[in-house]
Amino acid sequence: MPEKLFPTTRLEAFSDGVLAVIITIMVLELKVPEQNGPAGLLKIAPILFIYFLSFTFIGIYWINHHHLIHRTEQADHRVLYSNLAFLFSASLLPFFTAYVIEKHADSFSVALYAASMIVTGITFLLLRLAVGRLLKQTGGLQPEDIATERKHYASLALYLIAIPLAHFHPYLALTAITLVTVVWIVPTAATPACPEDSTSYR
Amino acid sequence: MPEKLFPTTRLEAFSDGVLAVIITIMVLELKVPEQNGPAGLLKIAPILFIYFLSFTFIGIYWINHHHLIHRTEQADHRVLYSNLAFLFSASLLPFFTAYVIEKHADSFSVALYAASMIVTGITFLLLRLAVGRLLKQTGGLQPEDIATERKHYASLALYLIAIPLAHFHPYLALTAITLVTVVWIVPTAATPACPEDSTSYR
Amino acid sequence: MPEKLFPTTRLEAFSDGVLAVIITIMVLELKVPEQNGPAGLLKIAPILFIYFLSFTFIGIYWINHHHLIHRTEQADHRVLYSNLAFLFSASLLPFFTAYVIEKHADSFSVALYAASMIVTGITFLLLRLAVGRLLKQTGGLQPEDIATERKHYASLALYLIAIPLAHFHPYLALTAITLVTVVWIVPTAATPACPEDSTSYR
Amino acid sequence: MPEKLFPTTRLEAFSDGVLAVIITIMVLELKVPEQNGPAGLLKIAPILFIYFLSFTFIGIYWINHHHLIHRTEQADHRVLYSNLAFLFSASLLPFFTAYVIEKHADSFSVALYAASMIVTGITFLLLRLAVGRLLKQTGGLQPEDIATERKHYASLALYLIAIPLAHFHPYLALTAITLVTVVWIVPTAATPACPEDSTSYR
Repeated sequence: MPEKLFPTTRLEAFSDGVLAVIITIMVLELKVPEQNGPAGLLKIAPILFIYFLSFTFIGIYWINHHHLIHRTEQADHRVLYSNLAFLFSASLLPFFTAYVIEKHADSFSVALYAASMIVTGITFLLLRLAVGRLLKQTGGLQPEDIATERKHYASLALYLIAIPLAHFHPYLALTAITLVTVVWIVPTAATPACPEDSTSYR
Repeated sequence: MPEKLFPTTRLEAFSDGVLAVIITIMVLELKVPEQNGPAGLLKIAPILFIYFLSFTFIGIYWINHHHLIHRTEQADHRVLYSNLAFLFSASLLPFFTAYVIEKHADSFSVALYAASMIVTGITFLLLRLAVGRLLKQTGGLQPEDIATERKHYASLALYLIAIPLAHFHPYLALTAITLVTVVWIVPTAATPACPEDSTSYR
Repeated sequence: MPEKLFPTTRLEAFSDGVLAVIITIMVLELKVPEQNGPAGLLKIAPILFIYFLSFTFIGIYWINHHHLIHRTEQADHRVLYSNLAFLFSASLLPFFTAYVIEKHADSFSVALYAASMIVTGITFLLLRLAVGRLLKQTGGLQPEDIATERKHYASLALYLIAIPLAHFHPYLALTAITLVTVVWIVPTAATPACPEDSTSYR
Repeated sequence: MPEKLFPTTRLEAFSDGVLAVIITIMVLELKVPEQNGPAGLLKIAPILFIYFLSFTFIGIYWINHHHLIHRTEQADHRVLYSNLAFLFSASLLPFFTAYVIEKHADSFSVALYAASMIVTGITFLLLRLAVGRLLKQTGGLQPEDIATERKHYASLALYLIAIPLAHFHPYLALTAITLVTVVWIVPTAATPACPEDSTSYR
């Protein structure tokens, strides 16, 4: 049904815009410490680290979004709406980042932070399914799609473990969340995700 | 008069940028509750819901904007200025969202919220008329345009009802506004809005 | 010297992004009034009007920027740096808008507001000259360019008059600034600025 | 290995978006002075100058980013991740700018400001190396690349000198930082960086 689709160029542009704003306005949550000198900077080091975690989280999703939408040149309404749902849950990350920062990474705020990452992961899965459905029709599904999907499920499991973990050791939970970030960066850097020649794209 | 027009690529890019910023900076209105634990989150749940409503409102307009501008490849000054008017009224939504949140959804703030949605709807109608005028010249008007326009009028009527309703039951008025959102998501997801093959677009 | 130039696509994208953020973050300056009901809204009506003026100012410059860059497909470093200078002075508008709002439109703040508009106008003239220099080389200069340039000078003159005017009657100065806005919207809506067929552009 | 690459269009779009937001939200750090009249403006003049420095810093990096990515039409994961690292360190500039402003340009804050510029410079070097690695494969490396790289190292050296300098004379350190800005603007404006005909690009 190619006549029911429309091009993904504006979907990409809008998503890039929203993700760019999300990733950047989080810096507004960073408050200059009252204490002068290195002591002040040291005091806000954990806050800088949480900012780093959130930035990397959005950055990784941007790369995945890029790879996913890159596969298809057209989108249907299912893709559009699951994309909006993904952007909505991602847009809450600056808020939940502020939550962790202002609550000094207490159990509940860290659990909430992990939970918001799970919701973002689930909406991204919906987007992945919506795109996969289109690709199956046009025969564009590939083995890597399944591999990335599996990695995605593993990340969600780690975030899920982080929630009860936050109850006992909030910083251990943050370590689990950091681990997911590391896992995504390292192997993706090793294995390319777009095996087809993409020069002709766009 | 093709010589009096210019391409819509930058109109789309600028509108995408403005709508992306509008939809995302609203999250800055969400304040972390003072109360610790789930009780604090529960307290701000209505605020999160209003954020959700505003996000969806802009999201739906982005999709409609996408469909509308997609029809034409060129724009005249009427389109440019009605688009600026639409973006201006949409840009006030974060302010009126903050209004509802800070006034704890009292009658006046909810009525104002609904009124701002009506103004945004009217400016979008102006944009629709400006694009429609261009399409009539080039013969690109289609039955769906009229169907969507009718749906648009129905939404405006519901927002209009929400204003006096807010006087008596602010939450009932918010329900009416939510209803419009639901109506737009559900049937649009079912019926595609771009029946022509759009692969060749751009 | 076509080999010393590069395409304007990213120049447009970056400028669109910066102008979109400028135009939208100004809404963060709007504070919800403490007073409940219509009285509160009425109290902030002048603030809303100043926001409207600033929004329209950037909107008109975006349209002019669009027309200007549209003329050329390539840019040299002169264009790049004058564009950055234009974006820099435009980026200060949210600050000077906040200035007028927080100082309740006193003489000095309104004069400063007009002065910042003049600086933005001058940097835009520099950009216009840089593009004009390129167009002269490629023979793309047109009569409308000169017409718009004249209109531009007239606007600068009105802003210049607004500065001493602000000393005696701040609101009269704001009226002069509003007048410029009206002048730009009305005739531009009547006379198109891109007489060539632009379908083939990009 | 062309099959392991993907197009740079979205990399450019996302980077443009992030840099546009970074460069613009810094204006939110500018606070309207309490004092009325010209005295108030004079008081915040140093703050405006630091905003100008930060704006120009990002502006210059945007131009360099533009030139760098312009060279290649495709990117691998090394490019993607070094680009994210560059955007991350650049995104901290509004925070370190606020740091300098709120600490009234004391020794530590200025040293921190220079240090953050060095980190941004280093991540940009990583990006340059990642792109250079791709270009070597496709044979696209050019003499100017080496020239710009040398200029880049010189800038880093100046920033490095600014750190101990800040300990004794913070304003002298800021002058060194300003010098780097001037050096980048002046010769780049004279010597074009893209000697090949770029009309056919994109």
